[in-house]
Amino acid sequence: MIDRTADSLAAALFAGDCTAEEAVATCLERIAARDSAIGAFVSLRADAALAEARILDAHARGQQRGPLHGLPFAAKDVFATADLPTEYGSPLYRGFQPASDAAAVQLLRRAGAILLGKVSTVEFAGVGAIPATRNPHDLERTPGGSSAGSGAAVAGGLVPLALASQTGGSTIRPAAFCGVPGMKPSWGRVSVEGMKPFAPSLDTVGWIAESAELLGRAAAALQCARWPLPPAPDKLRIGYYPTPYISAAEAETLAMLQEVRQHLRAAGHEIIEVTGPPGAEQLNEWQDIVMFGEGQVSLLNDYLRDPQAAHPELRDVAMNARGIDSATLLAASDAIAMLRPQFDAALAGFDAWLSPAVPGVAPLLTEGNGLATFNRLFTALHLPCITLPVPRGPRELPLGLQLIGPRRGDPQLLAVAATVEKLLSHA
Amino acid sequence: MIDRTADSLAAALFAGDCTAEEAVATCLERIAARDSAIGAFVSLRADAALAEARILDAHARGQQRGPLHGLPFAAKDVFATADLPTEYGSPLYRGFQPASDAAAVQLLRRAGAILLGKVSTVEFAGVGAIPATRNPHDLERTPGGSSAGSGAAVAGGLVPLALASQTGGSTIRPAAFCGVPGMKPSWGRVSVEGMKPFAPSLDTVGWIAESAELLGRAAAALQCARWPLPPAPDKLRIGYYPTPYISAAEAETLAMLQEVRQHLRAAGHEIIEVTGPPGAEQLNEWQDIVMFGEGQVSLLNDYLRDPQAAHPELRDVAMNARGIDSATLLAASDAIAMLRPQFDAALAGFDAWLSPAVPGVAPLLTEGNGLATFNRLFTALHLPCITLPVPRGPRELPLGLQLIGPRRGDPQLLAVAATVEKLLSHA
Repeated sequence: MIDRTADSLAAALFAGDCTAEEAVATCLERIAARDSAIGAFVSLRADAALAEARILDAHARGQQRGPLHGLPFAAKDVFATADLPTEYGSPLYRGFQPASDAAAVQLLRRAGAILLGKVSTVEFAGVGAIPATRNPHDLERTPGGSSAGSGAAVAGGLVPLALASQTGGSTIRPAAFCGVPGMKPSWGRVSVEGMKPFAPSLDTVGWIAESAELLGRAAAALQCARWPLPPAPDKLRIGYYPTPYISAAEAETLAMLQEVRQHLRAAGHEIIEVTGPPGAEQLNEWQDIVMFGEGQVSLLNDYLRDPQAAHPELRDVAMNARGIDSATLLAASDAIAMLRPQFDAALAGFDAWLSPAVPGVAPLLTEGNGLATFNRLFTALHLPCITLPVPRGPRELPLGLQLIGPRRGDPQLLAVAATVEKLLSHA
Repeated sequence: MIDRTADSLAAALFAGDCTAEEAVATCLERIAARDSAIGAFVSLRADAALAEARILDAHARGQQRGPLHGLPFAAKDVFATADLPTEYGSPLYRGFQPASDAAAVQLLRRAGAILLGKVSTVEFAGVGAIPATRNPHDLERTPGGSSAGSGAAVAGGLVPLALASQTGGSTIRPAAFCGVPGMKPSWGRVSVEGMKPFAPSLDTVGWIAESAELLGRAAAALQCARWPLPPAPDKLRIGYYPTPYISAAEAETLAMLQEVRQHLRAAGHEIIEVTGPPGAEQLNEWQDIVMFGEGQVSLLNDYLRDPQAAHPELRDVAMNARGIDSATLLAASDAIAMLRPQFDAALAGFDAWLSPAVPGVAPLLTEGNGLATFNRLFTALHLPCITLPVPRGPRELPLGLQLIGPRRGDPQLLAVAATVEKLLSHA
């Protein structure tokens, strides 16, 4: 097991207790020491990052310092980067070198963050090869996917922030398995330009960070919230939404959520059991249809580059092996669209809803990536989701809770998450 | 006025009456002779296109010939191209050189089409500077926007096919003003990868071609239909849908549509007046909210590259000068989503609906780009649209009709358009 005890780099940076160069150097040292075991990074720009850090240290003063001044970050290898290859986890794009950074990368860098390197992804963010990345909490376990490297890099202390993406459960799942905070914002809040498309009506830029506070700062840099965040109410009103899929949750997850509710109540917050709008029990099925129906169009061109070399899963999606027809795809899209305002209305009386993030602890590597059962419905609904770690599982493996807000209620959800994180740290 | 009489290059090529090299050379000659007056092309790859044509002529035989074998085409400068700059019509991207072709460009090239060059666009496909491109039918008139160069290049006989895009009316409007067939397929049928994003829930790859048949062949290459197309019924059942915006149509457009209906009836086809689902009268307003609400996210990063140099319209969109709030944006998105299945159901008993494509003939250059009144609602609804020219306006300027199908009914709509085009040519 990797030693993941590490002082908070972000807190030190923002307090002025370390320079950008020191922060970058620290991350590079940790990567050198730990990443041969974890396997999160697929490329590094060590010298360029150090040079940028020195320039920031020398020239940025006061007002010139962006909200992420000097913060090292990594990007999932589905984001285009101008000076690092962008391979989408696929041998079909070996060595592919874009000419510009994806919009999300540009926004973080413009806020003062420093790109350290690219981290692993399941091929095309969910169709094909699974990377050889390990969960820092237990090297025999999966970090989850598809943002495997983003979760593992933050959990391993290699970098305080990593860009991820979510079309099904690709941000929340690895963050939860890796025991670190992660955010999937509302659909459409952060530009997807330069991020590999999968299913445009679902694709969402996500991020994983060492703390809920850093999730919020990154959200501000990505123009999805303002910094500082709006204050959360002193007394939170939280709906407990087990989702229609709660039977998939393992006993330890149910016990964890029970404890969390008790802690919240004990701290004076209100917890109300909610059932959610009817019809939600088909959401995961509809999400699957939309993801692979739209994915067929997005991935066809990738398959056609080299059908002989393509992964069988890529071939199946591009050739529509599932046989998703237009009527089925449209019915699923429309059914989801009808439920979106109903969920907003149901969420309106609450500061957030609480649900599982993942069924249980990270599975063994031999058992695959884990399930996105508690993510796919919320991605379909375009709702913002934040996972926070609750390190109470058996064998000290983390378990994740998930907080959900109404569409475009991202700033409020971040504020609630910061409050809940503080409460859990004192639990 | 430009002489736009030209034998059909595509027909000659597909009949084997000319080589790919001859087709490319012909286009290059026409561009040299005419484009200084039209101003459609912003860049050319003349030598590379000729070299590719020679290779195709020498090596592609029989089965190896793609469905667009040897066909020269142009791409609106919102599509990334690996060996031509991609400037989005914006000084903010002067000389920007992507590393790869957009998916739509790759799909056309893989089908045997030969990229000749890039053609002009309104800045960022609708926000900022209008290009100095002229309508080949009357050089004092606009070709329409935002796909100004795509419409003008095909209408001027410079190239038989051009990629375009539509978020409001950016394909159908210029095609209609320029008197050439144009297609906006159903949303989500053609990959938008590598096309500059504006409003992801609306952005659609479009194309403009010298004939309805070539629209269909291009659709097949873009994997949005099969070639040959399904046969259209002998007796068409067409709904005449004036839309809730018919008061914006000029008298000559109303007269043209009246004539078209008479021709169709005289040929034995059935024309039924339809009113369409209630609520449609707000669609253009909702489309506007969604376009600029989502556009704010897509264009913010472009604005932030250089706020001082940004066009005032770009600043206004990026800074949300319209003051579109989240509740308004979601209400508009949801209202449109509710109407989509209703329109499909209303269209179900018809082979297509007929409506105006544009209010009237192309305005003078001094009067701007023209209106997208008859396009925005259908873009919002994700419906496939085809415009066909009806050259009956005053001063011999073209007028456009528009055919509309249910979502994902693109192949059938193309077949209907081919039938209607044949009928109009004998009118």
